[in-house]
Amino acid sequence: MSGNTFGKLFSITTCGESHGGAVGVIVDGCPPALELSEQDIQPDLDRRKPGQSSITTPRSEQDTIKILSGVFDGKTTGTPILLLAFNKDVKSEDYHHLKDVFRPSHADFTYRAKYGLRDWRGSGRASARETLARVAAGAIAKKLLREKHSVEILSFVEQVSNLRADVELSSLSLDAIESNIVRCPDHAMAPKMIKLIEEVRDEGDSVGGVICGLIRNVPAGLGEPVFDKISADLGKAMLSINAVKGFEIGSGFAGTLLKGSEHNDPFIPDGQRKIRTSSNRAGGVLGGITTGEDIVFRVAFKPVATIGKEQSTVSAEGTPVKLKASGRHDPCVLPRAVPIVDAMSALVVTDHLLRAAARDLPRGI
Amino acid sequence: MSGNTFGKLFSITTCGESHGGAVGVIVDGCPPALELSEQDIQPDLDRRKPGQSSITTPRSEQDTIKILSGVFDGKTTGTPILLLAFNKDVKSEDYHHLKDVFRPSHADFTYRAKYGLRDWRGSGRASARETLARVAAGAIAKKLLREKHSVEILSFVEQVSNLRADVELSSLSLDAIESNIVRCPDHAMAPKMIKLIEEVRDEGDSVGGVICGLIRNVPAGLGEPVFDKISADLGKAMLSINAVKGFEIGSGFAGTLLKGSEHNDPFIPDGQRKIRTSSNRAGGVLGGITTGEDIVFRVAFKPVATIGKEQSTVSAEGTPVKLKASGRHDPCVLPRAVPIVDAMSALVVTDHLLRAAARDLPRGI
Amino acid sequence: MSGNTFGKLFSITTCGESHGGAVGVIVDGCPPALELSEQDIQPDLDRRKPGQSSITTPRSEQDTIKILSGVFDGKTTGTPILLLAFNKDVKSEDYHHLKDVFRPSHADFTYRAKYGLRDWRGSGRASARETLARVAAGAIAKKLLREKHSVEILSFVEQVSNLRADVELSSLSLDAIESNIVRCPDHAMAPKMIKLIEEVRDEGDSVGGVICGLIRNVPAGLGEPVFDKISADLGKAMLSINAVKGFEIGSGFAGTLLKGSEHNDPFIPDGQRKIRTSSNRAGGVLGGITTGEDIVFRVAFKPVATIGKEQSTVSAEGTPVKLKASGRHDPCVLPRAVPIVDAMSALVVTDHLLRAAARDLPRGI
Amino acid sequence: MSGNTFGKLFSITTCGESHGGAVGVIVDGCPPALELSEQDIQPDLDRRKPGQSSITTPRSEQDTIKILSGVFDGKTTGTPILLLAFNKDVKSEDYHHLKDVFRPSHADFTYRAKYGLRDWRGSGRASARETLARVAAGAIAKKLLREKHSVEILSFVEQVSNLRADVELSSLSLDAIESNIVRCPDHAMAPKMIKLIEEVRDEGDSVGGVICGLIRNVPAGLGEPVFDKISADLGKAMLSINAVKGFEIGSGFAGTLLKGSEHNDPFIPDGQRKIRTSSNRAGGVLGGITTGEDIVFRVAFKPVATIGKEQSTVSAEGTPVKLKASGRHDPCVLPRAVPIVDAMSALVVTDHLLRAAARDLPRGI
Repeated sequence: MSGNTFGKLFSITTCGESHGGAVGVIVDGCPPALELSEQDIQPDLDRRKPGQSSITTPRSEQDTIKILSGVFDGKTTGTPILLLAFNKDVKSEDYHHLKDVFRPSHADFTYRAKYGLRDWRGSGRASARETLARVAAGAIAKKLLREKHSVEILSFVEQVSNLRADVELSSLSLDAIESNIVRCPDHAMAPKMIKLIEEVRDEGDSVGGVICGLIRNVPAGLGEPVFDKISADLGKAMLSINAVKGFEIGSGFAGTLLKGSEHNDPFIPDGQRKIRTSSNRAGGVLGGITTGEDIVFRVAFKPVATIGKEQSTVSAEGTPVKLKASGRHDPCVLPRAVPIVDAMSALVVTDHLLRAAARDLPRGI
Repeated sequence: MSGNTFGKLFSITTCGESHGGAVGVIVDGCPPALELSEQDIQPDLDRRKPGQSSITTPRSEQDTIKILSGVFDGKTTGTPILLLAFNKDVKSEDYHHLKDVFRPSHADFTYRAKYGLRDWRGSGRASARETLARVAAGAIAKKLLREKHSVEILSFVEQVSNLRADVELSSLSLDAIESNIVRCPDHAMAPKMIKLIEEVRDEGDSVGGVICGLIRNVPAGLGEPVFDKISADLGKAMLSINAVKGFEIGSGFAGTLLKGSEHNDPFIPDGQRKIRTSSNRAGGVLGGITTGEDIVFRVAFKPVATIGKEQSTVSAEGTPVKLKASGRHDPCVLPRAVPIVDAMSALVVTDHLLRAAARDLPRGI
Repeated sequence: MSGNTFGKLFSITTCGESHGGAVGVIVDGCPPALELSEQDIQPDLDRRKPGQSSITTPRSEQDTIKILSGVFDGKTTGTPILLLAFNKDVKSEDYHHLKDVFRPSHADFTYRAKYGLRDWRGSGRASARETLARVAAGAIAKKLLREKHSVEILSFVEQVSNLRADVELSSLSLDAIESNIVRCPDHAMAPKMIKLIEEVRDEGDSVGGVICGLIRNVPAGLGEPVFDKISADLGKAMLSINAVKGFEIGSGFAGTLLKGSEHNDPFIPDGQRKIRTSSNRAGGVLGGITTGEDIVFRVAFKPVATIGKEQSTVSAEGTPVKLKASGRHDPCVLPRAVPIVDAMSALVVTDHLLRAAARDLPRGI
Repeated sequence: MSGNTFGKLFSITTCGESHGGAVGVIVDGCPPALELSEQDIQPDLDRRKPGQSSITTPRSEQDTIKILSGVFDGKTTGTPILLLAFNKDVKSEDYHHLKDVFRPSHADFTYRAKYGLRDWRGSGRASARETLARVAAGAIAKKLLREKHSVEILSFVEQVSNLRADVELSSLSLDAIESNIVRCPDHAMAPKMIKLIEEVRDEGDSVGGVICGLIRNVPAGLGEPVFDKISADLGKAMLSINAVKGFEIGSGFAGTLLKGSEHNDPFIPDGQRKIRTSSNRAGGVLGGITTGEDIVFRVAFKPVATIGKEQSTVSAEGTPVKLKASGRHDPCVLPRAVPIVDAMSALVVTDHLLRAAARDLPRGI
């Protein structure tokens, strides 16, 4: 109810602040007998961690994950799985000067308005460090989807500022995404994006962009009509990520420019007595339920709020002050956000798979 | 869990199909002692009802709402409120030819994939008639917000196909929105939009567009950090409406083109010892919590899937067939969707107001 | 959140007051393709309805149920099912003298304390008429359990005041329960119970008692460990029924008098490579999960609060007043409560069956 | 959904097995600005810990609690609080011989039926060690209730086997409860109970009993009518504790022997324009909502399933085997269960206080 739980059947409850004791997550509802170790989770955290390349924050955080419950003899037992990463690189004093200042476009002011007090060390709970818990939990969901259902989840950086990649989704691979530090599989565009981010970094500024999400091999029939459309749940999942300002599925905002006769996806017979659509402007979802085609969506990230340039703001008392960040921020959050988008995709799809299983019961009998 | 409930403290559970007995909603969690009668609800339903103008479907449905519980002596009692609209204009035979055909970009195929069977009369539960229940429940939320908290909720048609209105949000009024049948307060653009919709209607085609939502006078501090950010909940609310393919808040997708130094909203002192921002690219939300500035968002609607032109599709057996709609569809759903967007806004804000109240308890003591 | 919803996957949301427009329930999560008509539901309502015998209230209420959504062509569609019984025998004026009086051991005072106002007509939402919705929804769950899973649910009156029946559970049948108006299958004890209730009725007084619940053929493995033990969910279900003051499962309170060596149920091999227990003091549940043995529990009902004898109480202003009920009450609620206990049993077991199905997913693959 | 979360607004999610890495709990929804440190929590854990007296298990576990998030500068921040106790006294090999045996009246068999596999070390998740997390979370709730609302929560051992204490609730104090190791405030009966437990321990057997729960100074008006009656939520809370087989509130099962005229609690005017009842057979709850009188309930615990005597059971393959526990068990769980009952009481009342606060919103304006 306080918004720290996500998912209904495969559900995660996260905790932890930037500079508290630990960031953690309880994964509840994971089916038993899934082989699981910390090695299944760490690689996704490494894709998210700070300091991984020249275009991310130089902060060094190891983000080592520990499994503290729910796994026995190398397998999940069906009981809740506690994943924990202890906080290490704690320099709270770096933030002491921000104790009574509201940084522009950060959550300092709104947390204060909401709670009456706030943990001012490194943004506290509003820090993107919270997403570590999502990525750790998402790694379990991804493994379950991959091994038990052959579902594949891939996201990549499609746009940085006004630089837009041209990517053929049908041939997209994780290798292509991971082949450069900006996680853009368009090999011509990636170096331009990296150069732009470096320039912006050197100016003490930041840029935003768009991540494209792709989910392959989802069975038709997932999603609940009306409020829990899988598209609505994906939208909520992505809009809950720090810095996200927009979400669209399939044709999205561009689709509003088409006529119905141009936008509709014709159904066609497919070889194996299956039915497909010859185009996929729907983005894999009709009426909130999956069609079996690829789920395709886009997520808009605003430029990082922390910048090195001097800015005007006010103190908690309402006095105007000048502010200049000390420096260890990401000039562009998108490369590190790719595994976060992946994780949220995996959590949504896994949850809806379990929900579908519950409904199927009497049909199977 | 089956996705027919929305909201946690002010929660609605809806039911009903296009051609079943009734469409209804149980509103649970409405505080007691709110004056309420059917006259508070009917006007919003009239803004949503078919046949209201030359650019909506000519189907005639009265959508008369009845309050069947939860109100006594003209006031809410705190117990669940049942609102019901019986179905009348039932011509199921109109749909009989669609029994075994999957209409392109409709939910016929996905419902069949999900449930194994479907109510094929007028799209069944996937019909936009379901949104009647949202609008009815939303009218209660709007009244509560207006009377108890002075929150004002206004949405309008900002774009139809490529025609984009120019609207000054600070002077926007309900009268301006209701001054024309397309519900666009830009008096120069509205007639062009209407003309375009009429042309498209006469072609047997359809168009999409964008609704802009505005919520004024929301107190700072609403919204739960992490997963239940108020922006994420608004996004889910809007993406759960039929035909919606995109959502953005504040600067949205356009904000990805700005640098941090251009995008950040500076905090400034306001006369009454208050703090405001001098710009509002955040759209009224930082870190998922309201700033007290206007909440501004945009919702993308695809063109209506039902068109009069002949289309290719397949039958339930997978055989290719030709399909041509019989006619009583909306050429553009946006004018009638405005009250639906309003309703979902009201439901989200009311729910978060009650959630904030729960948390405030110990501070008030 | 306001406590009008029960169940997580097979969930019901009820509404309605004693003298409002209707009592209703939305059943959400019922699997598709279950054959269902009003004739499947009405018989259970008839077992609950007032005026059915000489030992129930003489109020005449027909309680005719209507299905208004979620069923098409005689089958459930997987969408929410709205069941409604319109209120008829409305003599609100009978209650007008109670408008400002707090009847002893009724909820008048607590509703006023909670909501600040109350619907004083026939107890409003606190009326046992609310249980009509539970019985209607429970009839669907019972049908699903019976037809798809061969689960049988039987409850009976085991004790009225100090008269305690002696019933052999292994041979219990619905016919035996329904063979007399007090719904006690002990043919020697039933007439004594009836006579006692008649005497108490003639005195203008009331009596309480115990209902024993039995659930047969539940598969082993249902129930969630820790908080949602199936025994805990059954307990909550029963304790949520009007007038219930106690619940015990298996050996219950009497089991506290035994030593561990006397209380433990030994496991024994069963013919078909199955494992059973040779006794069932557990009542069919170990660690909150079903063993596959019969679930057996007991529910204590206090004597009906409405009595014909004069009582002392206070008005809403706190002035002492004398009160005497006008008469149309049940001298003993137990015979009519039997189908309510059945319904709550069915709802709990169905919900846990669906929850188990969700978890089984990956094992089935 | 998997039953590891309890509470709706003040909610806890627990994790951990007897011999895994840790037992933990995320407390979500705790209001901000409550002073909190580990010293507020540890005393309750010490009341629950093994080895605390001659009548509890001799296992030595320190159960040291750590706060890892949600507290800053000695105060809660409103964000989730992670409490963790690392497991130490791990002798998994002690349990190796139980790997393939189903101990009578334990959850070994049902976990296996449910999950297909189980963590056999020390009962895994079914171990009463799980209640450590409840007690830790409950300590926060108790502090909030005590400091902000003056609510007092006291439980005590009322019955061990057939030895029943005589306790005057109106003068009950924590000191009286803690004055002896069996936690029974009847000074004449406590030594008899201790002697009985010692005798049973020496026989290698175990006994059960009854804990009486008392909650003082709860405001009138808490609880949701219909399904979430506070009595039903208390019942579920208690029935979710290991080894609990029964729950009753107020007059409970004994109340079924009274007539309505004997059972009803008359309302009387109280000095300060307040209304009270002259008796409290209701146990502080009418219609599921608190009256403002003391909440009084009883909880039945079966005798501990682990005994030193030889028992018959079967292996996982269904072969009959003889079993004899190695020894480190509690002969009577009740003294250590007292703080668990307290914790569950506190969690239920706190949750309902927050729920009431949410509803009060518009009345306060």
